[in-house]
Parts: sequence; C-alpha cells; structure tokens
Amino acid sequence: MRRRRDEGIGLEELAQAARNHGMPLEALRYDITPAGLHYLLIHYDIPPFDPHSWRLEIGGHVERPLSLSLEDLRARPAVTEPVTLECAGNGRALYDDRPISQPWLLEAVGTASWTGAPLAPLLDEAVLDGDAVDLVFSGLDRGIEGGEEHAYERALAVAEARREDVILAYAMNGQPLLPQHGAPVRLIVPGWYGMTQVKWLASIRSIDEPFGGYQHEVAYRFQRGDDDPGVPLDRIRPRALMIPPGLPIFPERERTLAAGRVVLEGRAWSGGGPIERVEVSTDGRASWADADLGPVLGEHAWRGWTFVWEATPGVCELACRATDAAGAVQPDEAEFNTGGYANNGLQRVPVMVTD
Amino acid sequence: MRRRRDEGIGLEELAQAARNHGMPLEALRYDITPAGLHYLLIHYDIPPFDPHSWRLEIGGHVERPLSLSLEDLRARPAVTEPVTLECAGNGRALYDDRPISQPWLLEAVGTASWTGAPLAPLLDEAVLDGDAVDLVFSGLDRGIEGGEEHAYERALAVAEARREDVILAYAMNGQPLLPQHGAPVRLIVPGWYGMTQVKWLASIRSIDEPFGGYQHEVAYRFQRGDDDPGVPLDRIRPRALMIPPGLPIFPERERTLAAGRVVLEGRAWSGGGPIERVEVSTDGRASWADADLGPVLGEHAWRGWTFVWEATPGVCELACRATDAAGAVQPDEAEFNTGGYANNGLQRVPVMVTD
Repeated sequence: MRRRRDEGIGLEELAQAARNHGMPLEALRYDITPAGLHYLLIHYDIPPFDPHSWRLEIGGHVERPLSLSLEDLRARPAVTEPVTLECAGNGRALYDDRPISQPWLLEAVGTASWTGAPLAPLLDEAVLDGDAVDLVFSGLDRGIEGGEEHAYERALAVAEARREDVILAYAMNGQPLLPQHGAPVRLIVPGWYGMTQVKWLASIRSIDEPFGGYQHEVAYRFQRGDDDPGVPLDRIRPRALMIPPGLPIFPERERTLAAGRVVLEGRAWSGGGPIERVEVSTDGRASWADADLGPVLGEHAWRGWTFVWEATPGVCELACRATDAAGAVQPDEAEFNTGGYANNGLQRVPVMVTD
Repeated sequence: MRRRRDEGIGLEELAQAARNHGMPLEALRYDITPAGLHYLLIHYDIPPFDPHSWRLEIGGHVERPLSLSLEDLRARPAVTEPVTLECAGNGRALYDDRPISQPWLLEAVGTASWTGAPLAPLLDEAVLDGDAVDLVFSGLDRGIEGGEEHAYERALAVAEARREDVILAYAMNGQPLLPQHGAPVRLIVPGWYGMTQVKWLASIRSIDEPFGGYQHEVAYRFQRGDDDPGVPLDRIRPRALMIPPGLPIFPERERTLAAGRVVLEGRAWSGGGPIERVEVSTDGRASWADADLGPVLGEHAWRGWTFVWEATPGVCELACRATDAAGAVQPDEAEFNTGGYANNGLQRVPVMVTD
C-alpha cells in the first residue's frame, strides 16, 4: 500500500512514528548523541533476553563453531569508535509518493560511541570454510513481514564482515547497550545504513551462497519501479543537516529569529568517504557559500560545520549541502524509489526574520 | 486548526511525532522504564545550558530570595521515588476530532526513578510571603505559542507545591538527567499529568494572585466546546495498558499468536489514588474478569498486572480496564474535549489467534 504526500499520514504509519523516533535536530549540537536522543527504528518488538543465558552462536560453514557468553565477548580486546548511523528510510515521508512504513522526515540519525569486540578475529577463530560467501546475522527479534514469520536477519559478504572497524558492540556511550539499541550485543558496520546494524544479536552463520532473506530480496532495495529488481541499499549517501535557528512555533515547528549575525551550525556525514565540503544557502538555493568545517571526530562520524549569516528582515529559506571525498554531492531532490529509501534531498528551513 | 481521525495525520503533526516519542508498549515489561524509552513531549527545543553557571532562582513574594547552584541542590537531603508520568495529550489521535498538536496514540507514559531535593524545605528557607498564592515554575525552553514568545511556565498552588513528594529532580534512574528530560533540574509532582513537570528549571517565583500564563489559561484545559471556559487538567486519570501479545506484523503492527495458554501482562496507574482493580476482556468488551495485581512499586508508580488467557483460534479483541481507590473507572471511550486531552478510553488490541 502506498500514500501520496498530500494524503497525510495514516494511523499505521503513526503507530510506527509513536514508538520509533528521530533525533530532535537541536541535538546536532552534541558530538556524541546522548542516550535516548539517537534515532530508533525497530521492525518488530524489543525482545526480552536473559543476560546470564544469552549466547552468541557462530556457526554454519565454519571449522570450529563458537558459542560465546557476554563475558566471553567482554574479555576480548575492545575497540571504541564514534559512528554515525542513519536509517535507510530517512526522508521517506518527504517523497511525493511512499510505501506504508516508518514515515521519517529528516531526523533518523545519531552518532554514538560504540564499544565492542572486533568481528574479524572471531571469524578467524571459527575458521570460515573456503566456500563461505556471506555471513548472516540473526537477531532475537521476530515478526511477520511479507506474510512470513521470521527473525530479523541481514548478511554481509565475507570481505565486508572482515573489515577491521566492524564490531560486535556491547556498550554505547560508555554504558551497557540499552534494550532498544540491541542489548546485549549488536553489530556495527560503520558507513552502512541502519538496516545492517543487526540488534539483539543471537547468531552469525557462514553460508556458501549469497543470502536470500527478506531484508535483502524484498526490503532495502533501491527500485525505480515495480518492475525494477533494483539494487541493495548499502552505504549511507551524503547529507548535511542544520540546527533550525531561532525559536520554534508550537505546534507547527516553524522558525522565527531576530535580524543580525546568526551562527548557523550543523553536521554532515557520508558512508562514501569523509566530508570534504559543506555549503549553505540563505536565499532559497539561489546562491551557495562554503561553511567552515569543524574537527574530525572519527573516520565514520559526522563532521560539524558552522556558517555565519547576516540575517535581514523577511522570510527566507535556508539550506545546506554536503560533498564527500568520493565526490558525491547531495542532490536538491533525491531520486524516486518504490521503498522510499535514501532520501538525501536537501533540508530546507524556512525562517521568518524579524526586525 | 483541527483534523478528523479519518483525515490522517498532517506533516506538522508528524514533525512533532518524529521528535517526541512514546514508550513502545512492550516496555511495560520493565518496572522502571530504561533511558530513552520513557515518553517525551517537548513544546519548543531542548535548550542548551552551562552546568557551571546554571542557577535556580527562587524569588518573587518571598522574604529571602535564594540562588542555588546544582551543587547546592545536590548537597541537600535527597529523595528517590518511582513516579509514573503521562502526557495529558495521551490518546489525542484516537479522538474522532482533534486539534493540531502532538498526535499521541497510547504510548505517552513512562515510570522513572527520580532523585532530587524536596521542594518544601526550600520554600521554608525562602520564607513565602503571607500573600503568596501560586508558585510559578519557569523553564529555560522558549518558543512561540498562541502568537506570543514565552518561556514554558506552569504554576502550582502553594499547598500543592508543599506536598512532601514534590521534588526538584536532578537524576533519573540513578544517572544525571538527560538533556531531553530537563537537565540539569526539573520539577516532579507525582500524580499530575506531564505538563506540570517543568523541565530545564530556571526559576520559581512566588506570586500573590492565581497564575494566568498560556499553559493554564489557553492550553491544558478540559473544554467541552469553544464556548466552554473549561477546567484546568491536573491529576492523571486511571488507565491500564497491556503488552500486545504474540508477534507483530510490520509495518501495520497487527498481532498474531498461537492458540493455547497466554499470560497477558501490563501496567495500570492513576493520579487519583492507588490502583485497586484491573479487569481484562478477551471478547471485545462483552465480558470482563479480574486480573491479578502485582506488587506495589511505590505510591505514585504504575502497578503490574497479569491475566491468564486460554486463546482459541480466530480473531478477537482484547481490552483492559483500571479502577482506582477513589472509585474512578476507566471509561470505554473518553469524553470529547477541544484540546484532545485525557483520553483514557480503553486500549483495544485486535489479535489473530492461529491453530
């Protein structure tokens, strides 16, 4: 089922929006998103688990299957890294036509400091068979999607899973994972959209053919139409967001501010490479000027930016645009696709500047 | 501006729903709601503050104005109490006709363990003038509502503010307050709807007449029509919620489960007194049976309940109903009011039971 933007949001979409949530954009002020402000997208229910009996099983096409407790994982060498995660469906409700799903505007993003055990040494320990093609990550979360009951599962090709920055995370911002973020352990694959970051991890199995699960074959594909088989979503496309300046109007969330010098600030990120440039427009995208980039927080974390604006009275529209080191530039409007994914079209912030 | 239920949710309402969020109902399983799962309703933006320069000013009609640092507050005798908070607008989107605001379904609730300094001894120290009528609590959060710029402000009558369980909270679940929950200090008035629990507290002023601010005179009133001046909302009305059983369907969030013995569980609460009874219906509210009540967590915290159900194949509708010690019973449907407040009509959970 689909809806057009002018039809409004249905009650099933609202049921998703009431339980999942975005990051209020003023939280772009924090290098590391505080607990509870990081976006959340949960397909099914948050599953209960027993921390004492929980095990992570690594098996399938391996020579030495492993069964690890939380203590086993914590006892291994740990890595801590700031990683920006974004939902592949971010911006879905801003497309003119969208499927019924989580109706994101712009807020499905966050940057946490993740701590966990690197995955590659665990795969070495299990010794993948020579015919291993994909690794399938299964969560404890179960539900019905596409008419079938299943656990949430996503796979990675062996080479991608062996990247040194791929970790099994058990802490977020220095605290044990919260239930809604995948406690006790989740996968973190920096640079990829959120569907890859399997929460409530139960098992990793090595298989000898490409994975054909629902979240690869049906969902999370960029399809230009119903007849297009499409391609799987993978890395996060470049995006810049700003903190909407001035004061909000309740409930419409329009903005108003006083004329004069205003420091606009925000963050930009891309899964395609480091952010090289952020531009800002204060005249409805007619002209653009470079923002100042802030320090690098980490290879896979968003980058802060600031821009000094001399605001004059009247109504105007602000916008910002990111370019990454691979040369990918954020488009004015993202390309339609049936799943409503990867909408990295420009944020536009109308503001009323008063005398 | 208003909308009817069948019109769907507008983009301004979605902008609220994307940043505020409810508690996923499976989180009813936790006695104390983990960080990030507790509901949030923020009128304006989360304000920044400097923990070193922040002061709480207590003034107005007092003999000895106080100016307190965070350390001053932390140095005082502390109280920790579990308190269930609920937004006065919970259920708004389930009314047939509603104003444009935060479009809650059922999830605007949470129970945290709040730690802070009792307010009454601070008022004693400041020595309220004999003519003091109301105490006005002002937040650092500012916005435009009803056409006027203002800080979020709510007041309490002196006697209510002096209740021994009213605290200035600086910790939630044993951690410093998160930005979105009012850091560094917020008001907690157990039993009252969320609009009372002023976040990002900046000042408390004693005034010699009833407070006439926007959040009392215009918002948060129970008005049966546009000509009804209405009455202010205050205490939370009784409500029971259940964890929707079985497995969810994505994205519709319908439920399915296998026939057999199912333990339904949930929580119930009321600002009018302790919960005395929870009833459950498994046949579309045709018949009701008593649930078993769990232990008391605290005078102002929700109470757990369980109900054993022998589910037989077919489609049925579950419901639950709370009664408090004052004799208030949750209604089938709540009474219409122009603000869409206090919708404690029964939760109805359609489920498909399979063989």
